Amino acid sequence: MRGVVIESQDFRLTTHPDPVAGPGCVVVQVRGAGLNAADLQQARGTYPAPPGWPADVPGLEIAGEIDQVGPGVRGFAPGDRVMALVGGGGHAERIVVPAELLLPVPEDLPWEQAAGFPEAFSTAWDALVLQAGIRAGDRVLITGAAGGVGTAMVQLAAVSGAHTVASVRRPELHDRVAALGAQVVTPDQEETQGPYDVIVELVGGPDCLHRIALLRSRGTVIIVGVQGGDTAPLRMFDLMVKRARLIGTTIRGRSPAEKAVLAAALRTSVVPLLARGRLRVPVDATFPLDRFADAYARLAAPGKFGKVILLP
Amino acid sequence: MRGVVIESQDFRLTTHPDPVAGPGCVVVQVRGAGLNAADLQQARGTYPAPPGWPADVPGLEIAGEIDQVGPGVRGFAPGDRVMALVGGGGHAERIVVPAELLLPVPEDLPWEQAAGFPEAFSTAWDALVLQAGIRAGDRVLITGAAGGVGTAMVQLAAVSGAHTVASVRRPELHDRVAALGAQVVTPDQEETQGPYDVIVELVGGPDCLHRIALLRSRGTVIIVGVQGGDTAPLRMFDLMVKRARLIGTTIRGRSPAEKAVLAAALRTSVVPLLARGRLRVPVDATFPLDRFADAYARLAAPGKFGKVILLP
Repeated sequence: MRGVVIESQDFRLTTHPDPVAGPGCVVVQVRGAGLNAADLQQARGTYPAPPGWPADVPGLEIAGEIDQVGPGVRGFAPGDRVMALVGGGGHAERIVVPAELLLPVPEDLPWEQAAGFPEAFSTAWDALVLQAGIRAGDRVLITGAAGGVGTAMVQLAAVSGAHTVASVRRPELHDRVAALGAQVVTPDQEETQGPYDVIVELVGGPDCLHRIALLRSRGTVIIVGVQGGDTAPLRMFDLMVKRARLIGTTIRGRSPAEKAVLAAALRTSVVPLLARGRLRVPVDATFPLDRFADAYARLAAPGKFGKVILLP
Repeated sequence: MRGVVIESQDFRLTTHPDPVAGPGCVVVQVRGAGLNAADLQQARGTYPAPPGWPADVPGLEIAGEIDQVGPGVRGFAPGDRVMALVGGGGHAERIVVPAELLLPVPEDLPWEQAAGFPEAFSTAWDALVLQAGIRAGDRVLITGAAGGVGTAMVQLAAVSGAHTVASVRRPELHDRVAALGAQVVTPDQEETQGPYDVIVELVGGPDCLHRIALLRSRGTVIIVGVQGGDTAPLRMFDLMVKRARLIGTTIRGRSPAEKAVLAAALRTSVVPLLARGRLRVPVDATFPLDRFADAYARLAAPGKFGKVILLP
């Protein structure tokens, strides 16, 4: 089978041996695979794949049909439409996935949307609902709201009954972010329509912790992405006076058991919202596997709305 | 009655009108009053008293006998021995205190110890137990562990079943901190006996957030004091990879209702531990009211073990 491989900090298409489903696992014939900033970080060598996953094949999320079912797997059969957040190896024609990570793909959902669901919605659900504990009536600020995780955050905040302010640098994307359920879309990262119960940081940068001043007392800043700069001065006295929380989160380094627990929460609570049309997966662009280089270039470019997807 | 007053960023003893107990309040004849860093900050103008409390009389905690009972107060009578965390006004011979803030003083507990209990143990209980959620078996690092709040933190960590590492700059205080229940006492703020489930920051300073590297995955840093410097660079990517929480906390600015809730938790859970001798209040030095200047000087000096107390 063909798959992308990382070599000398660059990507290249190569032929891999066909994978075999071990105990508890299935082989998925990949029909769509999402691209994520972590793929670029992995190529640069700053974000290695977790143990147990291909070290040199990018791709954190896939959708496709089950091709082989390994020993001890129950509830799945060849041909089932599934999607999953994986530790790597998704940008290929086939991948081995532990069955406990599989999510069902709702009927009629196109592959490109299914392929863009697992990473963004797992990250957003875990951060916003499970960790920040968002509740109806909360005021939420989401920075970098037009990206893959950002568009998922805006929708989950909306279905949670929050009043959502989305910060999106490019004015030409504002209407589309508003259509996902944001009450206010602003180009201004320093906007002051607070106070906020929750601030979701998807951008980072040296000034981003100044936004603590926009929190309500006992508010939460959850740091999910810091592509714009990963170090910032923290005025600790402000954090004390606000009695605020700052939470950092990633999913990739979690144990297999923790990832299975999160997948179970997605299966129970989030996939049904997707199936009912309460959530959708904005897709910025799709590329066939042999145009992988264009796909990564699009991922690295500014001004995207939603996900970039490979269609092997 | 006599009391200390803040004038031109300095302290002075003066005569105040005798207070009267309004509805829901009592007047306490102060027998002991703790000194806190916040008194010095208030004198410098950087930490004003919350609304409803004397703006210019320092003193955040008192112990003494009830002198007058205001209308609508139940369960208290003149002569009762009480202690309380107050919003200010404690460094005087008498003070008005809302009855809902009063804690009973255990029989036989000397005034100087009762006077040093409310602020340190309210702060420590709220931060370590209610917010950081410390549990038996946790590994805890407490910086600045020889001070008033530090000695309370070490004891509460010990009664909670935690393995406690205390960082104390002065070696001559190490034995006394160990006797409070710390398994390890170290002079090194950068010590590396982690990983820790909880780090209690009582010192601050520009390097203090580097200690995030010592956290266990999903660990908590709770920032309670930043006398050593209130701004520090935060490596947000480290916080993400550790999936760590950073919590800032203060008690002084809380609403009267929140303070009453905390006082109720102290009454139920912490005062009984004090009464049974499981907790004690280390007193560094006591001074009569007219030696207030020496008391504040001692408070500002390094090398203390426990609380500095005025005995009006």
